[in-house]
Amino acid sequence: MEAIHQTSLRILEELGIELMSPEARAVCRAAGADVDEASGTVRLDRELVAEALATTQASFTLTPRNPDHAVVLGGDHVTFGLVAGPPNVHDCLRGRRRGNIADYRDLVRLAHHFNVIQIIGNQVIAPVELPANTRHLDTYDANLTYCDLVFHAQAIGAGRVMDAIHMLALARGLSLEELAESPGLTTIISVNSPRRFDGPMAEGMMALSRHGQCVCITPFTLMGAMSPVTIAGALAQQNAEALFGIVLTQLVRPGAPVIYGAYTSNVDLRSGAPAFGTPENVKANIASGQLARHYNLPLRASPTNASNAPDAQSVYETLNALWSCVLGGTNLIYHAAGWLEGGLTASFEKLVLDVEMIQHMVGVLEPIAVDEGALAFEALAGVPTGGHFFGSPHTLERYETAFYRPLVSDWQNYQAWEAAGAKDATARATDIWQRALREYQQPAMPPDRREALDAYIAQRKEEIGSGEP
Amino acid sequence: MEAIHQTSLRILEELGIELMSPEARAVCRAAGADVDEASGTVRLDRELVAEALATTQASFTLTPRNPDHAVVLGGDHVTFGLVAGPPNVHDCLRGRRRGNIADYRDLVRLAHHFNVIQIIGNQVIAPVELPANTRHLDTYDANLTYCDLVFHAQAIGAGRVMDAIHMLALARGLSLEELAESPGLTTIISVNSPRRFDGPMAEGMMALSRHGQCVCITPFTLMGAMSPVTIAGALAQQNAEALFGIVLTQLVRPGAPVIYGAYTSNVDLRSGAPAFGTPENVKANIASGQLARHYNLPLRASPTNASNAPDAQSVYETLNALWSCVLGGTNLIYHAAGWLEGGLTASFEKLVLDVEMIQHMVGVLEPIAVDEGALAFEALAGVPTGGHFFGSPHTLERYETAFYRPLVSDWQNYQAWEAAGAKDATARATDIWQRALREYQQPAMPPDRREALDAYIAQRKEEIGSGEP
Repeated sequence: MEAIHQTSLRILEELGIELMSPEARAVCRAAGADVDEASGTVRLDRELVAEALATTQASFTLTPRNPDHAVVLGGDHVTFGLVAGPPNVHDCLRGRRRGNIADYRDLVRLAHHFNVIQIIGNQVIAPVELPANTRHLDTYDANLTYCDLVFHAQAIGAGRVMDAIHMLALARGLSLEELAESPGLTTIISVNSPRRFDGPMAEGMMALSRHGQCVCITPFTLMGAMSPVTIAGALAQQNAEALFGIVLTQLVRPGAPVIYGAYTSNVDLRSGAPAFGTPENVKANIASGQLARHYNLPLRASPTNASNAPDAQSVYETLNALWSCVLGGTNLIYHAAGWLEGGLTASFEKLVLDVEMIQHMVGVLEPIAVDEGALAFEALAGVPTGGHFFGSPHTLERYETAFYRPLVSDWQNYQAWEAAGAKDATARATDIWQRALREYQQPAMPPDRREALDAYIAQRKEEIGSGEP
Repeated sequence: MEAIHQTSLRILEELGIELMSPEARAVCRAAGADVDEASGTVRLDRELVAEALATTQASFTLTPRNPDHAVVLGGDHVTFGLVAGPPNVHDCLRGRRRGNIADYRDLVRLAHHFNVIQIIGNQVIAPVELPANTRHLDTYDANLTYCDLVFHAQAIGAGRVMDAIHMLALARGLSLEELAESPGLTTIISVNSPRRFDGPMAEGMMALSRHGQCVCITPFTLMGAMSPVTIAGALAQQNAEALFGIVLTQLVRPGAPVIYGAYTSNVDLRSGAPAFGTPENVKANIASGQLARHYNLPLRASPTNASNAPDAQSVYETLNALWSCVLGGTNLIYHAAGWLEGGLTASFEKLVLDVEMIQHMVGVLEPIAVDEGALAFEALAGVPTGGHFFGSPHTLERYETAFYRPLVSDWQNYQAWEAAGAKDATARATDIWQRALREYQQPAMPPDRREALDAYIAQRKEEIGSGEP
């Protein structure tokens, strides 16, 4: 850890980061950083990094419009997020298609329905049929209407961020100042690795930090492509890039909530295609946990996969990565439900399989009860050798809650399973998301807040017109 | 751990174990145990347990006919075993069928072909077309002919065990005394839980221990059925039953190699069907690791599943359990390849998916290299911001071995994958086991040993006739 930490400080001091926003460079210059305006390179010395890290928060709460669904990011808390970003969507009934707002809403409904999903990702899928410059208003509206969970602002420039801030404030009945004291938004700031921060994203990030909202800095360190082919080198780069963004948030607003993002994985060196859930990805996630704890920061990582189908590969890649997220002490497990095809598709069936895997993990994380009742000596004394415990009072008192009850798993014997149609887990997942959408209940919103939101959206669509938001 | 340990000692002292072999009871009585001949109950006090545990080995080597394939059981070593025991076999081309010797041989061939499988389980599948009383000779012959790995003796009575001992000694060109000094066999001694040791199995176990071969004592503690519904209670019972068998091995031959077996999982309380890879199974495996380390014993656990198909469920159940095996420090990961349907079927496709998951885990267990080359500062300095590392000398020097190369995973883009037939991972696994059987190479055996084995088998078949072996 120390060698990786020291190498990342050398990267920040000697190589620097290209920061493509003049506004952001001005913030760095004011703080004493070495800024080269010609190349846009910003170099940070280790004292400046240490000072900025000293104002970060180890743990904080994000509150959505339903305060019962607030999430704590930090410490031993684990929060699971919905897939975000794919241009396509797939289910086994309708096949693969371009992202669209109807499927967007259904995916948000499913996230609301399954309790283990607690955060809506940064644009669940791209609703490509909507105008690009006002699309964010429709997706924020869906995030606020079909669920009541924490969601992400789109940090492509300050305009889209401010719309999220205004809309969440309206939905919660808060002023912007009150919202800054009780943050409810987050976003992923992807670094254009190696060592480049995009201008609009840096400005979106600063807008969020300025208003007290959370950001997560995630370097895009695919080993062999955007970062060295070695895990240690990729982690040194990830660490440098993440620390750079984290420092910037603290320069904008000391104490602004910020998350250390880890996304280091490898590519297929024959094709350049990204790979996830690999041994390299698993070890990078676990090591990233050590780095985030070194700085006392919340950690984001992701249980992603590169499969083209919601099949066995998608599950072993995701589950290897999910275990590494948990073993790394990840607080925000992003893209935890519905990710497929290396992020090019959101899958309804994969979402259901992921909910099953997340629920398993939640069960694993509940400690084993060890007390006199649980140790069961009397129960053992009461069952003869070679007997069984089905009718034991000890069993009857506990059987309803003793074991995790699965969502997808089918434990019937082969003959009964065959007679019921021999459906594999993916086919059963199709039945389950359809049932979930039928059973889904839309969370209520007070009419005055609904009206205020509708008015805001209408006004902003008119203002934006065909321009930039 | 201490509470579970103490409860298990109370079980051994106060409740005792029903030991159905008079010969084994005589061994216990001679050692000072409290034996009730009428009920067959044997009670062990904690001093006797502690004395016997003091002679166990923390680590030992098992050597098969090819000494290059010897395995160390104990310490940080992890060994993966082939599925064992199913009455049925399945592949996606030929469907589900009864166990038979042709499929038995193919499964052994696959175990030999894939390097990560290092132990042949206790009768891979049941070859039900062969006479039950001499079937073990045919399966030992397959184990010695189609692979050169450590294999299991069948511990149903001393006769079948002695055949394994004689056959391995012939295949290695050793005397029985030499074989006792260089053990090469192991077996699973399943406890007829709760608290009953079957007679033939106890006698098979003693025969192995007497000849210095390894046994693994595995209580069959399915929570809610053969053990209490609580994890702590099931572990206390598992621990008592495992310690009982372990003590017996040491009474027969102090220092005899013995493994602590963990198989605690839950049942579906609505149907009584066994379940695996559940949160309860995962936690029991991890806790079992703590217990085994408490006694400084090698651990066996299993990454099993209850799915009826080689599908997403089979993979998430197996992989959750596999992670728990590794996190528990399991030395012998038994049934690691090919298990399906709660153990009622051996699956060719699942075997391939399991090899992929085991290979991933082996990659995960390789430490991250951290040295100046791996930290890659110069490589980072040599790539411009926003550039890429594909052509970097640092990448070119390392790309061939930098990343794990998968067996089953397909990382092509969607269009290329679709054009290639849109095969999911299970369909690709069908192609892979067929190719593996084509590429398989039978390990050579010196002609004199081959002849000696053939003569032994022929003689024993005649001796056994229609009687018991």
